[in-house]
Amino acid sequence: MYDTLVLNANLATMRAGGAPYGAVRDGAIGIAGGRIAWVGPRAELQGAPEALATEVLDAERAWITPGLVDCHTHLVYAGNRANEFEMRLNGASYEDIARAGGGIVSTVRSTRDASDNELATSASARLGRLLAEGVTTIEIKSGYGLDLDTELRMLRIARLLGETAPVTVKKTFLGAHAVPGEYKGRADEYIDFVANEVLPEAARAGLVDAVDAFCETIAFTPAQTMRVFDAAKALGLPVKLHADQRSDYGGAALAARYGALSADHIEYSSEAGIAAMAAAGTVGVLLPGAYYFLRENHLPPIDAMRRHGLAIALATDSNPGSSPLVSILLALNLACTLFRLTPEEALAGVTRNGAKALGMGGTHGTIEAGKAADLVFWRVESPGELAYAMGANPCARVLKSQQ
Amino acid sequence: MYDTLVLNANLATMRAGGAPYGAVRDGAIGIAGGRIAWVGPRAELQGAPEALATEVLDAERAWITPGLVDCHTHLVYAGNRANEFEMRLNGASYEDIARAGGGIVSTVRSTRDASDNELATSASARLGRLLAEGVTTIEIKSGYGLDLDTELRMLRIARLLGETAPVTVKKTFLGAHAVPGEYKGRADEYIDFVANEVLPEAARAGLVDAVDAFCETIAFTPAQTMRVFDAAKALGLPVKLHADQRSDYGGAALAARYGALSADHIEYSSEAGIAAMAAAGTVGVLLPGAYYFLRENHLPPIDAMRRHGLAIALATDSNPGSSPLVSILLALNLACTLFRLTPEEALAGVTRNGAKALGMGGTHGTIEAGKAADLVFWRVESPGELAYAMGANPCARVLKSQQ
Repeated sequence: MYDTLVLNANLATMRAGGAPYGAVRDGAIGIAGGRIAWVGPRAELQGAPEALATEVLDAERAWITPGLVDCHTHLVYAGNRANEFEMRLNGASYEDIARAGGGIVSTVRSTRDASDNELATSASARLGRLLAEGVTTIEIKSGYGLDLDTELRMLRIARLLGETAPVTVKKTFLGAHAVPGEYKGRADEYIDFVANEVLPEAARAGLVDAVDAFCETIAFTPAQTMRVFDAAKALGLPVKLHADQRSDYGGAALAARYGALSADHIEYSSEAGIAAMAAAGTVGVLLPGAYYFLRENHLPPIDAMRRHGLAIALATDSNPGSSPLVSILLALNLACTLFRLTPEEALAGVTRNGAKALGMGGTHGTIEAGKAADLVFWRVESPGELAYAMGANPCARVLKSQQ
Repeated sequence: MYDTLVLNANLATMRAGGAPYGAVRDGAIGIAGGRIAWVGPRAELQGAPEALATEVLDAERAWITPGLVDCHTHLVYAGNRANEFEMRLNGASYEDIARAGGGIVSTVRSTRDASDNELATSASARLGRLLAEGVTTIEIKSGYGLDLDTELRMLRIARLLGETAPVTVKKTFLGAHAVPGEYKGRADEYIDFVANEVLPEAARAGLVDAVDAFCETIAFTPAQTMRVFDAAKALGLPVKLHADQRSDYGGAALAARYGALSADHIEYSSEAGIAAMAAAGTVGVLLPGAYYFLRENHLPPIDAMRRHGLAIALATDSNPGSSPLVSILLALNLACTLFRLTPEEALAGVTRNGAKALGMGGTHGTIEAGKAADLVFWRVESPGELAYAMGANPCARVLKSQQ
């Protein structure tokens, strides 16, 4: 007996290896206790629908996908950086903007100054846009506090969002995002502070699902990153990495060495780095919003990723500086248009592989018996339409489980 | 005495020549009979608000802009071309797609086959997305019928949209969009048919506000375009042109010679063509959605446009083949990111210059006394935010006059 039986739908189950999109035409889904109890062609359903379920839900020929997963965001912050965007377009240099107090430090300043309520309200508005497009799981990073109090506040607000909206929130500690002003020229001391003070306290408070770092010539070195990762490992926390966004800095291989859940950006990663990730089961997360907004022109090594069978995820990277993007559907379009992913690869990136990038591959990301009943109904004629349209939102209904 | 007095707002009046965005901080707008009767700093308002107006509207510190104008769309059509998008990303060539029945002919086939109700319903859904982002005036072209009956049906449905939704619709006849299958190899005969039969009948039915043509090596020659334009002139109708999208085909100069309202795309136009347009008062309409979606890399000559003082408008080009875009805010972001327009230029493109491109510069497009009270309230800290965010919609309220 199911709580809900969904009929009259086409299913993009996103199970790998079979038909494109794992498609089941005229499918049915039985839901019990917030999980998918049965899924398959309606013709294989045994018995009269009304006898099988408390509620029969007519999907009106919608396509149904798994709930979408946005596996890389910086959703909690104060202020915005529209003024920098405008200054740059009026000819200001990065130095001009830095002199005017811009850059990441401006977001850190605004975030430290903001009240909990201000942070929750602005993040909630952004989250609302993503939920309306079928996002049911989202990762949210700290990293605009860079002090003990504000880093923990950001993570608490991320947790609060998951408690008050129909979405599963994964909280990532990103203390190693940038060196704050008070540690200027003392990056190693800041890493000590992050690894030995902030992270342990955040973990004790139950605020950390994973630990991230920004490993880049303009941020932290591989050696500094490893100290953060070692601290994470000592606490039993999984790691992930902002890697090789601007240069091949060995980030992909470093992430693989630590068995990271994911390495993100990886635009400059070497083929050896990609191969190491694939062997380690580390997901590659592409962030086309930042690539577009920063007008990058060095494409991530997609062909190498395909050759090595790397699981490719896709996310908005929603943040005020490099990707002020609050549309997961637009991330699909950007990935197809700019990176030449196929619509099916793009959709896998925000379902099956997005879940895997958060360590949730066993419970989320596909429509399969036993998985959480996070389902999105779309008014489209084919799943490829989700990546094709720009600015449309054909989401007709979202079912979000408590799993 | 005003019907409505709007207080507690910052105004981006978009009047040219003064402060950036024509900004008035802490401004007030008096509305009477659907028109702006008074606009200025609140401090200059004489008398108590309640004594001045039937209704006092607290804008809650919103920024107010003129109603947005989307001056180039193909909003009425049936079907979509997601399957072509997907085929291309899976490696299909243009020939493969043509063999599979794709390209513009597929939209013509779907549109001819669709009922009025189907056409109105799908266009209305797209229109709804644009209205939610503050569009109060939209241009809609025919051009997927290419026969007498369907061209007129498209224009009637465009008119119907304006009668049933809070938006001013300008109807453009684009019979010279492509050569339909039944005239294959007989483009000149098709132009005869368009110029001598379809256009006059559409004009007699009051369905034509302007006449457009697609002048390009893959479409119609300048000589064919001129025959359509001459027919339009004989009927007293203004013209506009799809010009120089793929090559410098002399479209900009041709449009200028006919005193066209606008020449659109103009990515390959020569500086002489741009100068001719500026001298003729022909607006240049940029369509960054198509540039992005088609992965073009030849930038329109923006510097030349600025040098010659060309009025630059901006539009979605919403259509199923080359710009499946239903977000005017995203058009702003695309124009800034890809074309390096400033946010102020982009906003002028969908207000002051968008109105001018439709021959409505005298009555719409800025917040000035005497103009239509089409106003959009935005929850932003600066007007530049409208171009900066991707996927957000800070539109808080729209006032649409009957003008």
